[in-house]
Amino acid sequence: MSDFCGVFPYLVSPMNTDGTVREAVLRDLVDHLIDKGVHGLTPLGSTGEFAYLTWPQRKRIVEIVVDAARGRVPVIAGVSHAASAEASRQAREFEELGVDGILAVLETYFPLKEPQIFDYFAAIAHSVQCPVALYTNPSFQATELSFDVVSKLADIPNIEYIKDASGNTGKLLPIATKLNHKIKIFSASAHIPLFVMMLGAVGWMAGPACIIPAQSVKLYNLAREKKWDEGMEYQKKLWDINMSFQKYSLAPCIKAALEIQGFAVGDPIPPLRPLGAQEKEELKQIMQKVSL
Amino acid sequence: MSDFCGVFPYLVSPMNTDGTVREAVLRDLVDHLIDKGVHGLTPLGSTGEFAYLTWPQRKRIVEIVVDAARGRVPVIAGVSHAASAEASRQAREFEELGVDGILAVLETYFPLKEPQIFDYFAAIAHSVQCPVALYTNPSFQATELSFDVVSKLADIPNIEYIKDASGNTGKLLPIATKLNHKIKIFSASAHIPLFVMMLGAVGWMAGPACIIPAQSVKLYNLAREKKWDEGMEYQKKLWDINMSFQKYSLAPCIKAALEIQGFAVGDPIPPLRPLGAQEKEELKQIMQKVSL
Amino acid sequence: MSDFCGVFPYLVSPMNTDGTVREAVLRDLVDHLIDKGVHGLTPLGSTGEFAYLTWPQRKRIVEIVVDAARGRVPVIAGVSHAASAEASRQAREFEELGVDGILAVLETYFPLKEPQIFDYFAAIAHSVQCPVALYTNPSFQATELSFDVVSKLADIPNIEYIKDASGNTGKLLPIATKLNHKIKIFSASAHIPLFVMMLGAVGWMAGPACIIPAQSVKLYNLAREKKWDEGMEYQKKLWDINMSFQKYSLAPCIKAALEIQGFAVGDPIPPLRPLGAQEKEELKQIMQKVSL
Amino acid sequence: MSDFCGVFPYLVSPMNTDGTVREAVLRDLVDHLIDKGVHGLTPLGSTGEFAYLTWPQRKRIVEIVVDAARGRVPVIAGVSHAASAEASRQAREFEELGVDGILAVLETYFPLKEPQIFDYFAAIAHSVQCPVALYTNPSFQATELSFDVVSKLADIPNIEYIKDASGNTGKLLPIATKLNHKIKIFSASAHIPLFVMMLGAVGWMAGPACIIPAQSVKLYNLAREKKWDEGMEYQKKLWDINMSFQKYSLAPCIKAALEIQGFAVGDPIPPLRPLGAQEKEELKQIMQKVSL
Repeated sequence: MSDFCGVFPYLVSPMNTDGTVREAVLRDLVDHLIDKGVHGLTPLGSTGEFAYLTWPQRKRIVEIVVDAARGRVPVIAGVSHAASAEASRQAREFEELGVDGILAVLETYFPLKEPQIFDYFAAIAHSVQCPVALYTNPSFQATELSFDVVSKLADIPNIEYIKDASGNTGKLLPIATKLNHKIKIFSASAHIPLFVMMLGAVGWMAGPACIIPAQSVKLYNLAREKKWDEGMEYQKKLWDINMSFQKYSLAPCIKAALEIQGFAVGDPIPPLRPLGAQEKEELKQIMQKVSL
Repeated sequence: MSDFCGVFPYLVSPMNTDGTVREAVLRDLVDHLIDKGVHGLTPLGSTGEFAYLTWPQRKRIVEIVVDAARGRVPVIAGVSHAASAEASRQAREFEELGVDGILAVLETYFPLKEPQIFDYFAAIAHSVQCPVALYTNPSFQATELSFDVVSKLADIPNIEYIKDASGNTGKLLPIATKLNHKIKIFSASAHIPLFVMMLGAVGWMAGPACIIPAQSVKLYNLAREKKWDEGMEYQKKLWDINMSFQKYSLAPCIKAALEIQGFAVGDPIPPLRPLGAQEKEELKQIMQKVSL
Repeated sequence: MSDFCGVFPYLVSPMNTDGTVREAVLRDLVDHLIDKGVHGLTPLGSTGEFAYLTWPQRKRIVEIVVDAARGRVPVIAGVSHAASAEASRQAREFEELGVDGILAVLETYFPLKEPQIFDYFAAIAHSVQCPVALYTNPSFQATELSFDVVSKLADIPNIEYIKDASGNTGKLLPIATKLNHKIKIFSASAHIPLFVMMLGAVGWMAGPACIIPAQSVKLYNLAREKKWDEGMEYQKKLWDINMSFQKYSLAPCIKAALEIQGFAVGDPIPPLRPLGAQEKEELKQIMQKVSL
Repeated sequence: MSDFCGVFPYLVSPMNTDGTVREAVLRDLVDHLIDKGVHGLTPLGSTGEFAYLTWPQRKRIVEIVVDAARGRVPVIAGVSHAASAEASRQAREFEELGVDGILAVLETYFPLKEPQIFDYFAAIAHSVQCPVALYTNPSFQATELSFDVVSKLADIPNIEYIKDASGNTGKLLPIATKLNHKIKIFSASAHIPLFVMMLGAVGWMAGPACIIPAQSVKLYNLAREKKWDEGMEYQKKLWDINMSFQKYSLAPCIKAALEIQGFAVGDPIPPLRPLGAQEKEELKQIMQKVSL
């Protein structure tokens, strides 16, 4: 079993308006985040606007990230398609490109029943050798992973992780207590990582970690050392920045914040819209307030 | 302004397990439906499992349908992508392939606000010369088209149609009464087409029309002749078949029904699953009962 | 079997701020509506703010309405409580007060399963001799009546009617076609009554009928005479008034409209709030536009 | 400001089928829970089936609980009605009966806007002298308390507590950090109390505490002593019992568990149904497993 753990930022996808990837800034961001101590990188999560990218764009982004990371930290790339076969094909190509793990994102159109959800994730896992992390996001898609499906999927050897985006500790508790020998939890960030760490998570994958990498690592270390009270105070302090990410749409907000920090990642992909001038100003003030 | 009207079946996408299109049966189906009197064809709607197909697969299906239709009836092809640019690119390619119209399907990941929904549809419309039909499906995606957005979009000259999948006559009434000079309504089928015709719709686009094409045309003609009472009796008769389509997932059910009718369209695309033996038997009996 | 049919306005509940009923205006309203030709009266529906009234208030309202109606038209009074026994007790008392039928409203706190929904309505029906109409409102309460439950409930002899508030003709079609020998449908008003009449409904119960009683009766007569096209034009004309009722909260809007018409029914019950000055003005103009 | 803190079980409402209260067993339960160390008692919460009780039944239950408690622990009684005036009247009567605080439950029929939600809670608070706890349950009612409304309500001097039923630590964090000088948090139980205690809560109100009072008090003490890791292990151990309470409907499950423990609290109030024989057996085994 692999031992991914710690803070894995969901990388934004810096795009030109002609649909090409802004390679230089993506490489800079990778270096910057590794310098700040993050433990891994996750391109093509929700914050990475994966749903807004074509396959060639997705592939190019993963190529750049793997190359830029130079093995310093593991890269777990997101794959997603409504069809099992196409998602599996993406996973295989990413493995050939050298990723260390696959974040398997469920994409649905017709509502899926549990056996179909199982089939989808199982197909992806069987198509690669590397570790796979299960991921669903109930904020954006109707389908949820039940305990029973997670339990069955965890029997597939290379399904080693689950990324929980719900922040519902009631759903995580049984996974943490009954399946902890066969699947490890990555938390969402925001208000919850310390609690999920306390439940036994090994880290978190999150968009905000792009702009607060050092702070995220500090919080992670407090959790690892079981300094819960100190960690709680620190998590509260970081909360203001998270509240602004909840207020605005995730990807546009992280891209705006990175632009403020000097990374020319560009605008979100239309029809997503960049933050307005006033929203950017508000975001700037919040970032200053928490010394970012 | 174009004058599409009548019954437009949403074509299934007959696929081999290796991901290639079953061209022969798709051509047969096109001929069969035109023979039965349908007024147009709509590949790559929900029933066409568009979300489960890659771009090369989608393109091949439209090529075949346009070629097989040989101009006998108009072809309105579905385009859909979370990114406006990619959806627009698909629309342009389809127009070059010779489609007569575009069914613009809204695909969302992050929740969209009204100006973004406007942007998405406007981008598609501006990318082609041919007529465009707006389409959202609140059963499968959270986003709905408000009256205000429809009203603004209807000012774009080639946005000429709206396909309503909701069956909510309360939402259609203001569109039918206040926007009828600039946008025409296609109804969903199922329980509602007669009522929406009475509100002023010009026809309907629907998956079940693949397997009850002649009956759908008959119902349409009753509506055109304003024989509402006779139409109502006939719509009630067709209702049983629609109830089974509601019970099972749409694409798997239509594919199973076409197989029963002798069209070897194959199974739905995994992780969708074909109907079980008992479900197929039940479907067979319902089809016999309504003399299909 | 009884033969309630036609337009049954949901009466508002005119209350003083001290919690007493404004008896005089309620009697005036009853006389006025009967003069305008309505076929029955329904106190204590949603528009009647039943949920905001105590039992003594509810009882007093029904007493007044029964007395004021003087048998000229039937009175169907709403009963509702989370507990079957209390709802049944209310029904019995209303029957003793002389109502002609009971509108049984489902009130839920914990989510109910189908057998419990059956139990609730069955308990009410068994507690009285008079006809009972089933009623749920999916806009305000999570629970819906499935076809199976309606079918079983319709076997109870005095459950003779179902009031549908959903406007979902897909749910009504099977009731209208398969259960029409044992249960009759009352429609909601708004955008849908003509269609539901076409499906076989016997009339509608609705708040807006309080302020457009004559127009509602005219629409009903067009439907009875199967003048569907003429009816459709007339329903479209009434639609503007309905749109404003959708925009504002139902009871506050009907009360404001009745005040404009000269009925001093007072404000809605706090924490409901009366319409603001500008909203009242807007409502006034809409009412003038449709010549009310 | 008052200093309610610790474990407050939501008492079940033991009822005979004729609608009278089972006084003896209610008194026994009160003594038993106080003996086990609970810090307060909360009659007429969700677990207390308040929505299924008439006003005379509610009043009788509070009379008995206040009398049985004999001032040993504070009693915070639930009030709830769609109308502000009636909820306020209930609160006043309970205060005259001697309760130490009011749990103000929001009951909605028409959807409420924020100023109306404010009005409702403010009316209750202004009607009594004693401390008031705000309460909404998003599982059962659509309306939620926003941070802004809570913030404004917390300015009313005797609104001193908020009972959070959501388990959404993201909503609690800003309340805990920004409003902690003017409102104190009571947690829900289940999977979350330890985390909410870590955020600064003063205790929890919960149905399961009726059957695991000593264990709940032990968990509370671990939290008070900031023994988070030990507390986490203990909370995980109690989790199995909570999972069964989630599986079955809350009040029926707690009543069944109390019957198993020898308290003849009777069945839930129809149309709620008691657990079946097999469900009771399953519950019994879970209770034995966690040594209850």
